[in-house]
Amino acid sequence: LNPRLAEFGTTIFAEMSALAQRTGAINLGQGFPDTDGPEEIREAAVRALREGRGNQYPPGPGVPELRAAVSEHQRRFYGLDVDPDTEVLVTAGATEAIAAALLALVAPGDEVVALEPYYDSYAACVALAGGTRVPVTLRPDGPDGGFRLDLDELRAAVTDRTRLLLLNTPHNPTGTVLTRAELTAVAELACERDLLVVTDEVYEHLVFEGEHVPIASLPGMHDRTVTISSSGKTFSFTGWKVGWVTAHPELLTAVRSAKQYLTFVSAGPFQYAIAEALALPDTYFTALREDLRAKRDLLAAGLADAGFTVHPPRGTYFITTDVRALGERDGFAFCRSLPERCGVVAVPNAVFHDDPEAGRSQVRFAFCKREAVLREATDRLRALA
Amino acid sequence: LNPRLAEFGTTIFAEMSALAQRTGAINLGQGFPDTDGPEEIREAAVRALREGRGNQYPPGPGVPELRAAVSEHQRRFYGLDVDPDTEVLVTAGATEAIAAALLALVAPGDEVVALEPYYDSYAACVALAGGTRVPVTLRPDGPDGGFRLDLDELRAAVTDRTRLLLLNTPHNPTGTVLTRAELTAVAELACERDLLVVTDEVYEHLVFEGEHVPIASLPGMHDRTVTISSSGKTFSFTGWKVGWVTAHPELLTAVRSAKQYLTFVSAGPFQYAIAEALALPDTYFTALREDLRAKRDLLAAGLADAGFTVHPPRGTYFITTDVRALGERDGFAFCRSLPERCGVVAVPNAVFHDDPEAGRSQVRFAFCKREAVLREATDRLRALA
Ligand SMILES: CSCCC(=O)C(=O)O
Ligand SMILES: CSCCC(=O)C(=O)O
Repeated sequence: LNPRLAEFGTTIFAEMSALAQRTGAINLGQGFPDTDGPEEIREAAVRALREGRGNQYPPGPGVPELRAAVSEHQRRFYGLDVDPDTEVLVTAGATEAIAAALLALVAPGDEVVALEPYYDSYAACVALAGGTRVPVTLRPDGPDGGFRLDLDELRAAVTDRTRLLLLNTPHNPTGTVLTRAELTAVAELACERDLLVVTDEVYEHLVFEGEHVPIASLPGMHDRTVTISSSGKTFSFTGWKVGWVTAHPELLTAVRSAKQYLTFVSAGPFQYAIAEALALPDTYFTALREDLRAKRDLLAAGLADAGFTVHPPRGTYFITTDVRALGERDGFAFCRSLPERCGVVAVPNAVFHDDPEAGRSQVRFAFCKREAVLREATDRLRALA
Repeated sequence: LNPRLAEFGTTIFAEMSALAQRTGAINLGQGFPDTDGPEEIREAAVRALREGRGNQYPPGPGVPELRAAVSEHQRRFYGLDVDPDTEVLVTAGATEAIAAALLALVAPGDEVVALEPYYDSYAACVALAGGTRVPVTLRPDGPDGGFRLDLDELRAAVTDRTRLLLLNTPHNPTGTVLTRAELTAVAELACERDLLVVTDEVYEHLVFEGEHVPIASLPGMHDRTVTISSSGKTFSFTGWKVGWVTAHPELLTAVRSAKQYLTFVSAGPFQYAIAEALALPDTYFTALREDLRAKRDLLAAGLADAGFTVHPPRGTYFITTDVRALGERDGFAFCRSLPERCGVVAVPNAVFHDDPEAGRSQVRFAFCKREAVLREATDRLRALA
């Protein structure tokens, strides 16, 4: 095995989903909904299949319909001007977009500053590219008990070898939503130190307090930002694996040159369906957000009731808790025993940290599940107390 | 841009397919059929979509139904015993399988011996892994004018730094099908020098003379071979991007550890459809092969008639020709001018070579197109003479 991959075994999501399957526990580990997205979008995929759209290799950058829809989405929600022909690249989900961006932009020896805890593929891809990750830890010391970015720590993490900032807002697993003020400071730092920014914004439509601010929309950022998003979380078809990158043509070309050797192209028929999904009316996006807000509130209340310390998330599918209040110290051991103890699967945040102490007692629960499932899960968790 | 990717611009397939689109020329460049695969398989995908199978993240290694079907396929066609649980990994097409295998198994400084001309992603992925590729050139000096592997050259290419042999049979772009005798010699070399073998066998069902021999079936090879195949070429749904790896559990785990960070998982509903496709009766596979054999013969005759030197392929979708007989010297220039000169797109083999001289006058044509299209294309090409 390539020594660069040595520290990355099986992704925690595979491990925990396998554990759920084996034990029959309720899976609040991995972030996927248990209800599929809109029937009309599924039927759009059926039409594409039957009409022979996308059954053969689509164009490398993605089908024109989807690139146009991504461009229009950026205009409609954020007033951004994105050229569908030179500034949009369709990928096999956000995960491929992250891999392609990092493999394209990070050279051996480069430092990548990333928010910690981080989605595990960030660390693996930085390592694959031969780069060094430099974590900046989000800590649960916000005024409401939520997580917060320390801008001074971020500034201090940048060195002369820093190549790029790897951001994620709304942030998985903590649910942090970077504010316009915070992002403005980040943008200033990026401009001052001439850094690229790669930003994973897949939960852009799942912000429950405040607003989603794409960092590419801030002054000076258009030319230095690679924005990643995806359809999985916004349209509840995580199994279709349709994501995209938007960036300045020069950056986009670099990302594409890596992407074309990772998967060549991405699954065709779903690209047409997601093009239709992006054009759904505002009511769709509002209803999705309100549905998940209610689920967040339900799970947060249940977890608090069961004795967890809840760090309230402002976005995403996830709630990070602390299990010390339950007399537990190690989130990993806790998660491994949880299915047997009460039939629920969760994910230990420790695996998303470089610092073995940071996040040690943090455990993440997903709330993108049906209300009855969340109720049953919290009933089971209450048995722990 | 990562300097490791600097020499890899836009893949030739994207460039040539874009040229075809722009000029309206007949695209005999990229290898995809212009007729979709079986309606019943397309409808199997529709059923999976509507029944909610695969619409959310499938398991990382692939859905059990597809892993079982791949295992059964290996038994049925080759008498191979492949454990569906520990020896099969589903990927986003063969391209992702190649990327994952090379990123997992090649460490910086390792040498990779590969047959030249090679599918362009091989070189890019070896470079991304920090390895060095060592080409062994197939030359058109077989008894029938087809390409041939020089086993002495292959042996001479192996050094103490060689980590793996990267094979491809049936071979794209030359149509070479390695014989059992040749593969036995390759296997002996691999065992003697303790090398891993990564073998791309996506055209396994498109062998028109002789037989396809999976190198994993030869003595001593099961434990050191990573076999890659895919549904695109066998079932004529190249846009679905369903491929797979079979390998000894230890090797498979290594490949999976890279794959999970490239795309995480592969498009769900199509996995169920391809599971059904792999179980199609033998008549399906025979008819596919006979159909493509007839197309190969049609295109070969037309190309010869138009004045090209034809190097007869024993397998794949492709015919490699030499354009010197037409008074041309440079295949790249020839391919760039061809759409304008006669409305046909082809691919220059030069881009698949390290040696700028080898392959300079070779041009590849795909015959995976409807008979009428092939007739029209050869009529147009005759105008060159
Ligand atoms: C591949 S899982 C992607 C991220 C996610 O869904 C999770 O964090 O659970
Ligand atoms: C990505 S194209 C894959 C190989 C192929 O189809 C070709 O060589 O044309």
